[in-house]
Amino acid sequence: MSLIVHKYGGTSMGSTERIASVARRVAKWVRAGHQLVVVPSAMSGETNRLLGLAKELMPNASMASTPEALRELDAVAATGEQVSVGLLALALQAEGVPAVSYGGWQVPIETDSAFTKARIRRIDDARIRADLAAGRVVIVTGFQGIDPQGNVTTLGRGGSDTSAVAIAAALKADECLIYTDVDGVYTTDPRIVPEARRLHTISFEEMLEMASLGSKVLQIRSVEFAGKYRVPTRVLSSFTPWDIPIKEEAVSGTLITFEEDEKMEQAVVAGIAFNRDEAKVSIIGVPDRPGIAFQILGPVADANIDVDVIIQNVSHDGRTDFSFTVHRNDYARTLDLLKGTVLPAVGAAEVLGDAKICKVSIVGIGMKSHAGVAAKMFRTLSEEGINIQMITTSEIKTSVVIDEKYMELAVRALHKAFDLEQPAAA
Amino acid sequence: MSLIVHKYGGTSMGSTERIASVARRVAKWVRAGHQLVVVPSAMSGETNRLLGLAKELMPNASMASTPEALRELDAVAATGEQVSVGLLALALQAEGVPAVSYGGWQVPIETDSAFTKARIRRIDDARIRADLAAGRVVIVTGFQGIDPQGNVTTLGRGGSDTSAVAIAAALKADECLIYTDVDGVYTTDPRIVPEARRLHTISFEEMLEMASLGSKVLQIRSVEFAGKYRVPTRVLSSFTPWDIPIKEEAVSGTLITFEEDEKMEQAVVAGIAFNRDEAKVSIIGVPDRPGIAFQILGPVADANIDVDVIIQNVSHDGRTDFSFTVHRNDYARTLDLLKGTVLPAVGAAEVLGDAKICKVSIVGIGMKSHAGVAAKMFRTLSEEGINIQMITTSEIKTSVVIDEKYMELAVRALHKAFDLEQPAAA
Repeated sequence: MSLIVHKYGGTSMGSTERIASVARRVAKWVRAGHQLVVVPSAMSGETNRLLGLAKELMPNASMASTPEALRELDAVAATGEQVSVGLLALALQAEGVPAVSYGGWQVPIETDSAFTKARIRRIDDARIRADLAAGRVVIVTGFQGIDPQGNVTTLGRGGSDTSAVAIAAALKADECLIYTDVDGVYTTDPRIVPEARRLHTISFEEMLEMASLGSKVLQIRSVEFAGKYRVPTRVLSSFTPWDIPIKEEAVSGTLITFEEDEKMEQAVVAGIAFNRDEAKVSIIGVPDRPGIAFQILGPVADANIDVDVIIQNVSHDGRTDFSFTVHRNDYARTLDLLKGTVLPAVGAAEVLGDAKICKVSIVGIGMKSHAGVAAKMFRTLSEEGINIQMITTSEIKTSVVIDEKYMELAVRALHKAFDLEQPAAA
Repeated sequence: MSLIVHKYGGTSMGSTERIASVARRVAKWVRAGHQLVVVPSAMSGETNRLLGLAKELMPNASMASTPEALRELDAVAATGEQVSVGLLALALQAEGVPAVSYGGWQVPIETDSAFTKARIRRIDDARIRADLAAGRVVIVTGFQGIDPQGNVTTLGRGGSDTSAVAIAAALKADECLIYTDVDGVYTTDPRIVPEARRLHTISFEEMLEMASLGSKVLQIRSVEFAGKYRVPTRVLSSFTPWDIPIKEEAVSGTLITFEEDEKMEQAVVAGIAFNRDEAKVSIIGVPDRPGIAFQILGPVADANIDVDVIIQNVSHDGRTDFSFTVHRNDYARTLDLLKGTVLPAVGAAEVLGDAKICKVSIVGIGMKSHAGVAAKMFRTLSEEGINIQMITTSEIKTSVVIDEKYMELAVRALHKAFDLEQPAAA
């Protein structure tokens, strides 16, 4: 008998028919002798509907950032999952499987007080364990918890993934199965590269890079949690028929692993990630003196603008160019800020920007021990006539910023160059 | 400065525009220097939508009566009010009025564990008082609470009225204002008698009879609560413009009173209530021996059928006839039960029934001290040629069961006979 956590996304919970189907799948696992904890998202569209109602009542965006308003937004948004857990418990009972639902506050799932982006601090497992011992399936709301003052908090978009992995960690579950609308993690997006191949396993570090680089399969914080507590986590499809044999289902999708398998030659590159949500800004002719990076990025951080890639090259003639990327939504605001405040303060010459860029990354734990991987990436792009605007690297990834219009071409060329359409050598 | 509780029904909370209007009305009271606690219902239609989803997942009605399923139904249904309180708090904040929302479990509003029809045991007022003292409007979910095991419970349909009155009682509020879609309590239903007149005041006992007899203005348990804790409670319209002068609004509607005003001659009859939801059954030729009423009604109670009027007349020749009324939905089931089980057991001759009946009642605290009120009722009905099938009386009401088709005629004739279209003598 294993203790398994299932997580189902909003699409899987999108109607009572689909909830009934989730219940039949869970019941199958129970009948196979497993203990089950289930973390469902809100029914698809519900969180947006609730936040839409709230938005209609707020005259301006500045109000929506007060702690008082954020507290109420969380209280409203959290109801979506509260409905889901109750409905799924009823669906399981209708299947003849004893089941009980809990809101995050009932477990409790303790968080800090950062409304709309709270972080889980502690999960009390006593209540869940007692129900499991009594033979019940326990269904817990994703996306939410309770702060030390007894307020409802939410974990931010995609937070149900994090809830599921955190609950699996607290219970020391044997596996956390994330049922979603894709059937696993791919070498890259199959909509761009039809030859993209599903990975049977991916290392935790690679998954972290893939998640943070725009592969939207798993929320990045859930991957961090999985890594920190070494929760065996599998991403798999909720669209396979509920009654496929459990042996088959249990090895489908992509398993996130934590130890390099000695028997297996790791593929050099696991996958290609990409992201076209960013924009690039450059400050030209910056006097090269200590503290200049802070003088530029301090005001940007103060304005709550997140910065991704940062590049500063060596200077010549006492001047350098400083570039970074921001989310495309923050592009205009960033340009205004740089031109209005930063440029005069640092005594730079000019501010330039480009919103039509994209970032393409190769990710692979094998890069650690293989030289020339980045060089191969650059050569491949060069052969396609694609100019590289910015480069940034880490131990297991290399990212380039290029003109947006070359994105698909770059991804396809790299996917082929690194032989990703072939299964990794076993 | 007074402490006032406002309660708003689902229609008043039916859209974000209406919620904004409620917020402006509450803000007006706050700006007039009052402390406010607000208890809103779920947005109109929401509770039915939620219970509809739940129903789709339950294969049969018998499942819906298990404690496990009822617990989940309550958890799901309670979310409707949780959305309302958060949205109203945001709308008040948008008005510049500090406001905070609480679910019943956060206050906490402690109830027993009778899911879907829980009763309030205790309300902790510490949290609400602290917020009021800090200058905040406190918005609390109606309809729900938390049981000793930490489960969400609901109080049953119309339960938000009870929540509001109970919170007013716990806080010893100066007044509880129930904003609803009618502008007060009328001498009878204006749809039946156009001359029906709004009562400025009604005694608690009269209100109790009016509520229990089918005037659907206030849930009966809220009236019981108001009486038990002597909460000054006013029923008034949520459709008056939000910006009418507060002096005018504060005396509108109908105030429920607890002490007979010595200066005022009480009208003999305050109003006429009626109800066509009942059906009549009679067991004919029942042997007149001790315990017979229990032998008949015991099995009926065991089948969870509520009985309203019960009539047993004196016997002759050792036999009597025993009649009672039940809700029309239970009529067929009651007949089956009587014919199948009860008739042979008690050795009666025959079971008769009639679903096409109605109950008409005159209600008035003045009846206590005025003779001949019932006689006048019977004479009035007789003059209209209406046959009386059953009669039942209490200190402040007289009810008759008559053929359903005479209901409107009877109500109009009685309204006129007791001069209810005239304002009560001051």
